[in-house]
Amino acid sequence: MAALQAPPFHATLGDIAAHLNAALGAELIGDPALRITRIAPLETATSSSISFLSNPRYQAQLQGSQAACVIVDPAQRDLAQARGAVLIADDPYLCFARLTQWWAQHTRVPAPAGIHPRAIIAPSAQVAASASIGALVVIEDGAVIAEDAVIGAHSFIGAGASVGRATRLAARVTLHADCHIGANSLVHSGAVIGADGFGFAPTQGRFEKIEQLGGVRIGNQVEIGANTCIDRGALEDTVIEDGAKLDNLIQIAHNVRIGAHAAMAGCVGVAGSTHIGAGCTIGGAAMILGHLDLAPGVHISAASVVSRSLSEPGQYTGFFPIDHNPQWEKNAVIVRNLTALRERVRLLEKTTKE
Amino acid sequence: MAALQAPPFHATLGDIAAHLNAALGAELIGDPALRITRIAPLETATSSSISFLSNPRYQAQLQGSQAACVIVDPAQRDLAQARGAVLIADDPYLCFARLTQWWAQHTRVPAPAGIHPRAIIAPSAQVAASASIGALVVIEDGAVIAEDAVIGAHSFIGAGASVGRATRLAARVTLHADCHIGANSLVHSGAVIGADGFGFAPTQGRFEKIEQLGGVRIGNQVEIGANTCIDRGALEDTVIEDGAKLDNLIQIAHNVRIGAHAAMAGCVGVAGSTHIGAGCTIGGAAMILGHLDLAPGVHISAASVVSRSLSEPGQYTGFFPIDHNPQWEKNAVIVRNLTALRERVRLLEKTTKE
Amino acid sequence: MAALQAPPFHATLGDIAAHLNAALGAELIGDPALRITRIAPLETATSSSISFLSNPRYQAQLQGSQAACVIVDPAQRDLAQARGAVLIADDPYLCFARLTQWWAQHTRVPAPAGIHPRAIIAPSAQVAASASIGALVVIEDGAVIAEDAVIGAHSFIGAGASVGRATRLAARVTLHADCHIGANSLVHSGAVIGADGFGFAPTQGRFEKIEQLGGVRIGNQVEIGANTCIDRGALEDTVIEDGAKLDNLIQIAHNVRIGAHAAMAGCVGVAGSTHIGAGCTIGGAAMILGHLDLAPGVHISAASVVSRSLSEPGQYTGFFPIDHNPQWEKNAVIVRNLTALRERVRLLEKTTKE
Repeated sequence: MAALQAPPFHATLGDIAAHLNAALGAELIGDPALRITRIAPLETATSSSISFLSNPRYQAQLQGSQAACVIVDPAQRDLAQARGAVLIADDPYLCFARLTQWWAQHTRVPAPAGIHPRAIIAPSAQVAASASIGALVVIEDGAVIAEDAVIGAHSFIGAGASVGRATRLAARVTLHADCHIGANSLVHSGAVIGADGFGFAPTQGRFEKIEQLGGVRIGNQVEIGANTCIDRGALEDTVIEDGAKLDNLIQIAHNVRIGAHAAMAGCVGVAGSTHIGAGCTIGGAAMILGHLDLAPGVHISAASVVSRSLSEPGQYTGFFPIDHNPQWEKNAVIVRNLTALRERVRLLEKTTKE
Repeated sequence: MAALQAPPFHATLGDIAAHLNAALGAELIGDPALRITRIAPLETATSSSISFLSNPRYQAQLQGSQAACVIVDPAQRDLAQARGAVLIADDPYLCFARLTQWWAQHTRVPAPAGIHPRAIIAPSAQVAASASIGALVVIEDGAVIAEDAVIGAHSFIGAGASVGRATRLAARVTLHADCHIGANSLVHSGAVIGADGFGFAPTQGRFEKIEQLGGVRIGNQVEIGANTCIDRGALEDTVIEDGAKLDNLIQIAHNVRIGAHAAMAGCVGVAGSTHIGAGCTIGGAAMILGHLDLAPGVHISAASVVSRSLSEPGQYTGFFPIDHNPQWEKNAVIVRNLTALRERVRLLEKTTKE
Repeated sequence: MAALQAPPFHATLGDIAAHLNAALGAELIGDPALRITRIAPLETATSSSISFLSNPRYQAQLQGSQAACVIVDPAQRDLAQARGAVLIADDPYLCFARLTQWWAQHTRVPAPAGIHPRAIIAPSAQVAASASIGALVVIEDGAVIAEDAVIGAHSFIGAGASVGRATRLAARVTLHADCHIGANSLVHSGAVIGADGFGFAPTQGRFEKIEQLGGVRIGNQVEIGANTCIDRGALEDTVIEDGAKLDNLIQIAHNVRIGAHAAMAGCVGVAGSTHIGAGCTIGGAAMILGHLDLAPGVHISAASVVSRSLSEPGQYTGFFPIDHNPQWEKNAVIVRNLTALRERVRLLEKTTKE
């Protein structure tokens, strides 16, 4: 949404340490005057990079890294210090996240407040003065755009929809009529919020449309990925609670409820009226059937199919293990004939008992 | 695509009953003057809501519902009447569908006829006077938009494409050159109709493009979901027949034919040149390989992989059952070694016979 | 992106033969004056169509075809010649591909050079004079569009992004800031290149965003399908190498590397930091987990889940075989209890040995 500034940004290690110390109590051991031009992984870091080690498994990379400074936890202090400057913090990965945020704040050009002269805003829409409305945005009757919101170029905001404070829509987002998104959220390009849920009454060999009269309600601090779809409810609203994070190309059907701080990787599908508890995580390309309940703290592995409600927290998995194709073919034939194999075992048990 | 009117719409129960009686022979028992402000599920209905019971399993909800009136079938008449007003009809779910349509007609602002001043229409395109062309729509040479069609904001209609009578494209639909959609259809935001099919001739370790010279032909009363893709044919057209309903994020490859009144839930993929019979239903995230034939009346469960033609109607399923991760891991290992397990059974059979 | 010319294009068989002879050494046996109006499959070819036979399995179709001329390999010469004109070439399928390209060149109206008056181009963007910029395109600060590039209507090019020579973006493509695509590539509608990768640091039951500071680098001769998403890297770039072909609705997560001349069918997901070797092929709806390496020449069947690195070339498969639903239900129960079945076999083995 914004370009890197020229000339390239740099910071001193002291500036970085001051920020991470204030936020997370990180302690610097090293020269605060060191010039940092980049955050980098351990393997590709150069003598002007800052890097981090969050998983002790990568200790070997730490020792071989060219990084000017590495963020580590107290247990890695000695090892890290042996090779140069070090920032000690209890949660190096969280420090890394905060550092990327700080870096982005210093390197990205903020979207300018105001309405692009070639946006098209209905007279009855309300747009806060501090909001940024991009080129060719269309905002329809009665929509409300709050303070500091950013609406990317080519986005469409339907009638009566609303976008909360400091929420950002990337270029080309669709937020349909009477759909609402809270504050400090982020929606990526191509996302479609509020298309009709898939509802039909079958009659005489054809389908009669059930008009979708509900909307979509999305909370605060939510992130929604590129080309993800969240359908409007049939009668009630589809709901995404605060802090939920959805990756790209996800399908959320009508009347689904995604609990607070749940996370879903790309290509997930959630069928109609399913409720996903707070803090659940759903691996990529998992498919969750309709009218189910997933308890808080359920974790679904990638590519698994959830075909029943899961009331107990824990990790669940279900996909066919991959193999060399000829071996898979043999195994697949046996799987298709497992009842026969089980019958053979039963017969053997009978014979042996006799 | 349109906002709810202010002040909120309401109807009398008599108005609703008159409409459903004329359309479907529904019979009202109760006060026609009752004021109805909402269609609601049984659980959340209030004293000004109308609700419905289509599945006898939910009888308990019926008895506990606050709804002003409930639509039920004749078998539920006594139970429903015991709690208040009732509409008796042979197919309550169909009544519900028609009621949502009636409600939508009374609450949605229709798209205005005419061309938005900031749409861009090629001089050789033909747009009917009663059609509605939204803001920033681009319509290229020779395209034809029929009477009462609605083209949502930001949509793109390629050269020589056509949109039939009363068909509606939501905001941000792409209909590429020489692709055609019939009457009374509905296409949701982000759908891409007529991108190139995926065709390449492999040669010397690289791929040579096969230009896709066919188009897409879509019938009447078809619905196409958000961000769904329907590729143009290689030489012939890709075809979606009348009454087919496609949900969101579906991939229809080149030269596929989807039969009349077939339905597909979200995230389905159909590979090239496959033909799906009339009235088939395909569950969410099912994958149908290429060059296959599915007979009319085949029903594929969600997340199943169709790897061969299916000539017999019926329900087909194929996905790995989900389980607690440690149990899945154990089972997956055995699945990968089923040939060994079968061999052990064979040996036992041999030993036992001796 | 362009309309078929009126009146319909035709060519003489001699023109076609000359082109395929020069390019691929095809030899014509037949009347060069024959008028060809269409490239068609064998089954639907008419007396003015040219067709091809690339797979000897379809010999029966060859004999029944009405085609004016058929492209065949030397082994089919006699059979083909018995029915009419014939073009003999070593690789008829490659000839077919080249013929579709030639046909497209003669039938599609090329995009006009220059900037549409209603495109919006930042003053600091550089657009080559021979490039074609469509209606309502937005190009931001410092972006570079090379010679002969075509940017379709409604496309968005972020700040500092670049599009190489003769690369074409269809209508409604999003190329975000600091993302780069090489020469002679093709991106289809709805594709989103450079949305944020999905990265969060979990802390105290919620997720802290990791700003995605990398970009996307796409090579030459790459094709990217409709509504496909390629996320920007966290620190380094996500990379798609030369000649890779990606179908529709594919998700490429951050820091993935797709090797040269790899191909992926629709609905594939590739999770973060996975590297896919040169020349790999990935079947539709396959899911590849994160932080894996696939060696060059690995081929993954459709709908398979890759959960470990694959260092050996070959074909790999893993999906549950489809069956009639009642049979699948029985088999699924046994699969969930395979440890029990194996235990029964173990007991039998013990009993039998005793």
